[in-house]
Amino acid sequence: MGMAIDLNSDLGESFGAWTMGDDAAILKLVSSANVACGFHAGSPAGLLSTLRLAKQSGVSIGAHVSYPDLVGFGRRNMDVASDELTADVIYQMGALQGLAQAAGTEVRYVKPHGALYNTIAHDERQALAVIDAILAINPRLPLVGLAGSRVLELAQEKGLRTISEAFADRAYYADGTLVSRREAGAVLHDAQLVAKRMLQLITEGGVTSIDGSFTAIKAESICVHGDSPGAIEMAYQIRKLLEEQGITVRPFAEP
Amino acid sequence: MGMAIDLNSDLGESFGAWTMGDDAAILKLVSSANVACGFHAGSPAGLLSTLRLAKQSGVSIGAHVSYPDLVGFGRRNMDVASDELTADVIYQMGALQGLAQAAGTEVRYVKPHGALYNTIAHDERQALAVIDAILAINPRLPLVGLAGSRVLELAQEKGLRTISEAFADRAYYADGTLVSRREAGAVLHDAQLVAKRMLQLITEGGVTSIDGSFTAIKAESICVHGDSPGAIEMAYQIRKLLEEQGITVRPFAEP
Amino acid sequence: MGMAIDLNSDLGESFGAWTMGDDAAILKLVSSANVACGFHAGSPAGLLSTLRLAKQSGVSIGAHVSYPDLVGFGRRNMDVASDELTADVIYQMGALQGLAQAAGTEVRYVKPHGALYNTIAHDERQALAVIDAILAINPRLPLVGLAGSRVLELAQEKGLRTISEAFADRAYYADGTLVSRREAGAVLHDAQLVAKRMLQLITEGGVTSIDGSFTAIKAESICVHGDSPGAIEMAYQIRKLLEEQGITVRPFAEP
Amino acid sequence: MGMAIDLNSDLGESFGAWTMGDDAAILKLVSSANVACGFHAGSPAGLLSTLRLAKQSGVSIGAHVSYPDLVGFGRRNMDVASDELTADVIYQMGALQGLAQAAGTEVRYVKPHGALYNTIAHDERQALAVIDAILAINPRLPLVGLAGSRVLELAQEKGLRTISEAFADRAYYADGTLVSRREAGAVLHDAQLVAKRMLQLITEGGVTSIDGSFTAIKAESICVHGDSPGAIEMAYQIRKLLEEQGITVRPFAEP
Repeated sequence: MGMAIDLNSDLGESFGAWTMGDDAAILKLVSSANVACGFHAGSPAGLLSTLRLAKQSGVSIGAHVSYPDLVGFGRRNMDVASDELTADVIYQMGALQGLAQAAGTEVRYVKPHGALYNTIAHDERQALAVIDAILAINPRLPLVGLAGSRVLELAQEKGLRTISEAFADRAYYADGTLVSRREAGAVLHDAQLVAKRMLQLITEGGVTSIDGSFTAIKAESICVHGDSPGAIEMAYQIRKLLEEQGITVRPFAEP
Repeated sequence: MGMAIDLNSDLGESFGAWTMGDDAAILKLVSSANVACGFHAGSPAGLLSTLRLAKQSGVSIGAHVSYPDLVGFGRRNMDVASDELTADVIYQMGALQGLAQAAGTEVRYVKPHGALYNTIAHDERQALAVIDAILAINPRLPLVGLAGSRVLELAQEKGLRTISEAFADRAYYADGTLVSRREAGAVLHDAQLVAKRMLQLITEGGVTSIDGSFTAIKAESICVHGDSPGAIEMAYQIRKLLEEQGITVRPFAEP
Repeated sequence: MGMAIDLNSDLGESFGAWTMGDDAAILKLVSSANVACGFHAGSPAGLLSTLRLAKQSGVSIGAHVSYPDLVGFGRRNMDVASDELTADVIYQMGALQGLAQAAGTEVRYVKPHGALYNTIAHDERQALAVIDAILAINPRLPLVGLAGSRVLELAQEKGLRTISEAFADRAYYADGTLVSRREAGAVLHDAQLVAKRMLQLITEGGVTSIDGSFTAIKAESICVHGDSPGAIEMAYQIRKLLEEQGITVRPFAEP
Repeated sequence: MGMAIDLNSDLGESFGAWTMGDDAAILKLVSSANVACGFHAGSPAGLLSTLRLAKQSGVSIGAHVSYPDLVGFGRRNMDVASDELTADVIYQMGALQGLAQAAGTEVRYVKPHGALYNTIAHDERQALAVIDAILAINPRLPLVGLAGSRVLELAQEKGLRTISEAFADRAYYADGTLVSRREAGAVLHDAQLVAKRMLQLITEGGVTSIDGSFTAIKAESICVHGDSPGAIEMAYQIRKLLEEQGITVRPFAEP
């Protein structure tokens, strides 16, 4: 059996009359869809359409849970109390599971969004609040998080399966952490180069870091974007190169 | 086996820092709790607390789904498109089911709230949109509606179980419809009188109408309020009188 | 002094991370900007940017007030109580005026948006609630409404100045009312044809109706759209033809 | 002319169907009302009622601006970008000014609420964003802040008038900072004792700190609460004792 990898992307990020991303296009390229749950994006009717498309595409569904911050698109840190955060995550997972069920599919994993994703990578209190939510609903659902981050260790200690992910379009430091977006060169734009880096990630277990050295990154999934034509082209190049090299793109969780 | 009836009440209607009703007090008196789902009231952490109390009390949980209108408390008619309404109801049912699961219980029925409740009593388009939502999630969940209303017929035609309900504190016309709140005498305030009317409803199959004649009302559940000390006292008097007369108060759906 | 007309368009309809329309492009073509106030669209920072652009462009600012319905983009009828609607409109006018002031300009008129616009064209109760709001804040602000609609009469009776408007891309019946969007031919897509119709409107005082007869329409402003490249092209063609014919495009209210 | 002090309290914190506090009762006791602006509390119709009551009572109106966090009542820190925070504050000030105008009064000062209040006491970036908002709207409006906090210095440097306030029911450390709510004894509940402390504050220029020593506090206003019967009783005792001692309770800004 050959090598395989999961490609994941954020979907369902339209809201009411506003559209974001091209869900139909990116669903042809990825194996897992992190679907918004209404707290940073996603109104019910639009989410149901996206989930039906995902079902047709055979793509696995994850709950892309967020802080309650529509106007800030979930990108702003919020100091939410633990019991509120746990309940917020449960509410979102349940809402998306309801819609997924109506679309003939189901939620197969959880991936926090935006500021919540970044915060729980290191903040143990909020990380535990998210972990508690998953344990309360379905302890078999994996949690997707930043490769090497504290939340993945914590989740494992609590008995959750974890999926570590890499970001296709981001540069890494030699210690395996992401180069901050504030630094030059943090975000990569060359689709061919990014595709080659992802091939390297899978075949060599790491990528060339920003200082030129090799850094090991354990990644069970690769996050790609679908919110611009350029992003979709990048996802296309990654998938194409991986498949040319005999690497199967498939969900880590059955769709 | 003796007579039995369900008493239902609206719960979980606090929101963040704002409280409404006394959920702990009313849970000692009713057998079914219509729990808000976040669209007219109910923030996740508060809902989870209410659901845990309901679980402890052995009370059956219903999804009290609403139009998305927090500032209007779901009391204002909205001309929502059918696909949006269906998805809104699915989203709310899913969210409450997630929280209920975390509280060790589950959603056992659906009761629309406020303006949505009143609109679907006669508006077939919106009624069908709500019915479609229940069918999409769990066709075994009963729909609670106004005794004699069109939505109950439609739901039955679509294969749903329905529960018809009467309102304890409301006057009825001779034709079995509710006296409009704009009319004098529409709302009853005497707890003892209301209790006697509900005993009449169960034992005689109807109540004395506003013009003095008897009107038949088929009610499988009685809606009582818990949002004021007076309302809780009324619920207490109803339950007390029914139990004194050997009528069991129990949920129509297993909790 | 030659003929003149106002062209108005809806702006500020982005929200947080979501964009809608191309405010910079349409500001080069219109003389009045109906700027969202946060109830159907428009987050404060985005609105401030739009208002600064409008100020630079010398375009007049109107408050595009709406029902509180972000997810429905203000397009769904809501049965809002009069005192609530009046206060909602005041709140929005005040908020936009604050932002306009910060941008060095000010709100010069009020134009209700979407479902509220359509409802008050005929619903006297809601129309009066909107009129009361303007009277409470600044009785000198004109109200923009559908040519021939009841709200304009009512507003005039209450002492408000009114501006009647025509829709560039809409067909009219012989009685001067708009062809319903549900009818074939209701929306016009040919930019050149639309431009000629608007020239006819100004020079002849009416347009050819859908049945071929001439219908008189008194229009002091023409509403054009800017939410798609095609819409902007249409606005461009209208302005170009009018100016070629010596008709000045200028705001009815000083910017 | 004798001594005088301002008493301020948070008002307008109901939201739609939910009530909080007793605005009519507290308006008889205070001289300044910090009125919510819709971001943490306050729906337009309710705010308008509160503003009309405040107008009748001759109480001065301040804009109680907040982070956009209704479900969290503005009590959770949010990492809002500076331009967004400035625009959010302008929007709220404008909205409240519109409603105040409709009530025949006007906004006379700005007091940030909850987490925003606490954050700008020390966070210069967010403090400057709030200061910029006031400068953009009306540089003559004073900013109310925690006595001794950094934001007051910054505001003065930028040319704003500032009002430093003390909290009636809070214990102070010897260095003049507030005892954290997490510490025992942080919140005082004895209305008579609190009244005496506030008399001491005005006549001696400070209070007895939690370790028994005297700490100087420069306070031009005293914040009292009105959200419970006990809080209103405390405000009553403070006002009564001050007036008995010949100290006038009056707004720092003309109503």
